[in-house]
Amino acid sequence: MTYLIGIDGGGTSCRAAVADRDGRILGRAKSGAANILSDPDTALQNIIEGARAAFVEAGLDPAGITKCFAVLGLAGHNVGDAVHYVRRSLPFAEAHIESDGLIALQGALGDKDGAVAILGTGTIYIERQGQNVRYIGGWGFTIGDLGSGARIGHALLQETLLVHDGIHAPSPLTSSVLAEFHNDPREIVEFARLAKPGDFGRFAPRVFEHAERGDVIATLLLATAVWSIDEVLDRLVAQGTQKVCLLGGLAPLYLRWIAKRHQSRLTEPEADALTGAVALALARYGVDRSSAHER
Amino acid sequence: MTYLIGIDGGGTSCRAAVADRDGRILGRAKSGAANILSDPDTALQNIIEGARAAFVEAGLDPAGITKCFAVLGLAGHNVGDAVHYVRRSLPFAEAHIESDGLIALQGALGDKDGAVAILGTGTIYIERQGQNVRYIGGWGFTIGDLGSGARIGHALLQETLLVHDGIHAPSPLTSSVLAEFHNDPREIVEFARLAKPGDFGRFAPRVFEHAERGDVIATLLLATAVWSIDEVLDRLVAQGTQKVCLLGGLAPLYLRWIAKRHQSRLTEPEADALTGAVALALARYGVDRSSAHER
Repeated sequence: MTYLIGIDGGGTSCRAAVADRDGRILGRAKSGAANILSDPDTALQNIIEGARAAFVEAGLDPAGITKCFAVLGLAGHNVGDAVHYVRRSLPFAEAHIESDGLIALQGALGDKDGAVAILGTGTIYIERQGQNVRYIGGWGFTIGDLGSGARIGHALLQETLLVHDGIHAPSPLTSSVLAEFHNDPREIVEFARLAKPGDFGRFAPRVFEHAERGDVIATLLLATAVWSIDEVLDRLVAQGTQKVCLLGGLAPLYLRWIAKRHQSRLTEPEADALTGAVALALARYGVDRSSAHER
Repeated sequence: MTYLIGIDGGGTSCRAAVADRDGRILGRAKSGAANILSDPDTALQNIIEGARAAFVEAGLDPAGITKCFAVLGLAGHNVGDAVHYVRRSLPFAEAHIESDGLIALQGALGDKDGAVAILGTGTIYIERQGQNVRYIGGWGFTIGDLGSGARIGHALLQETLLVHDGIHAPSPLTSSVLAEFHNDPREIVEFARLAKPGDFGRFAPRVFEHAERGDVIATLLLATAVWSIDEVLDRLVAQGTQKVCLLGGLAPLYLRWIAKRHQSRLTEPEADALTGAVALALARYGVDRSSAHER
């Protein structure tokens, strides 16, 4: 008997699930990072290790993974070389690689139409209407990812320098940042010079916390970030989107700040991205493909 | 007889002047780049070559530079190691290294109080009241330099992606950018990933041009940039500054956009940065130091 495998591979960890040909999940497991862009060989190793561990968890012989059909959701799926290399090297009978965003959308919405706003260190929006899937944003930190944790943290450090220079009035938020850098703007500049998006992003929760307390600068920074999200939601709604799930690490923090006009469209995700990967595997490789598509 | 030397060393070229002990400029010359941070040895070589060429231009024996007193205005003057290395290696009898900004201020304002706003690829403000000199901004592209050409160009590329994604309405400005990148947002992202501040800055004049014609996006981007400058001028005025010179490549473009409340304080520079370096050399090493200070 062959099984379905779902993989949710991210930069921090890789999660795997094994399901029967009716899509019932039998076992789940977690392994190390699966970033196919920065380290494809480690990613491959962790994908395989995760799949084997899910088999063990389900009480199955892990050697069976070679007979499986798999759907993998991977960041960087749109970068051709990495994907070809990984797909060629996977041990599964058949494998289909999708974006990490698409399996998240599938998990969150099931087979319904709608959109997900993935709000984490970066931001990306995915909209599905029937068979049409459309990506918005997701262009990365340098000139994109508005509303992301990285951009919020970046804006906070910039604002802190303006306060230091006496251009803007201080607030408890900027004072806490200045204190952290020993009141030395050069330390902030040096930090920012070397910072990766995740390093900026670690300041984002602090902005939300201070905004809750009415900190003027936190409120302004957050309003700018929220505006950039509301603008995309406006666009999605204009295109016919009725349901939006907020996903990603900042989703619970953003929830109450999203504009009133969008609040009625926000829905809780039905399931997680790993479940979405299994659902896509079921649709593609399930025992009765046509019925799976119609669910 | 010994002479005074002024040096204006920048990332593109190095300018040098020789003057007599009364500060009368006898010869000027130009040599290659003098970036003491990225390439101190080439900088040293171009500083010496410039000084010798100024002597030749003045009809003097270039061997005489070793008896001179020099003031050098150099970008990166606040980075200790580079400055110590360059100062130790200079062939002059005495040498004093200042910021490129301070010699620009000295040239622009002479010995009067006031401030300069240096608006180019980056932005920095320098204010002088009597013997007190204060720097504002100049923290570099990553989290500073608001209103700079680099930040304007960066904002334009970001806006162009928002237009591509259908979040904002297009304008002739963003259409011209999209066309330049073959209507492919990935080309813009890739450009931005590799771009140095100067690469972003090359888009800034286009924003000014389109704003002159009433382009909506250009007007908005420019308003944001101008606001960041007006805010600093507000701060300078609150501290007592009465005169402001706009310097740098974007100064003539910005002039008409600066807020009305500041227009009466804007003045033309008296002289250039090289003249400022000579003036500082005169004040420091001139034939009658006390009278030079009192001028």
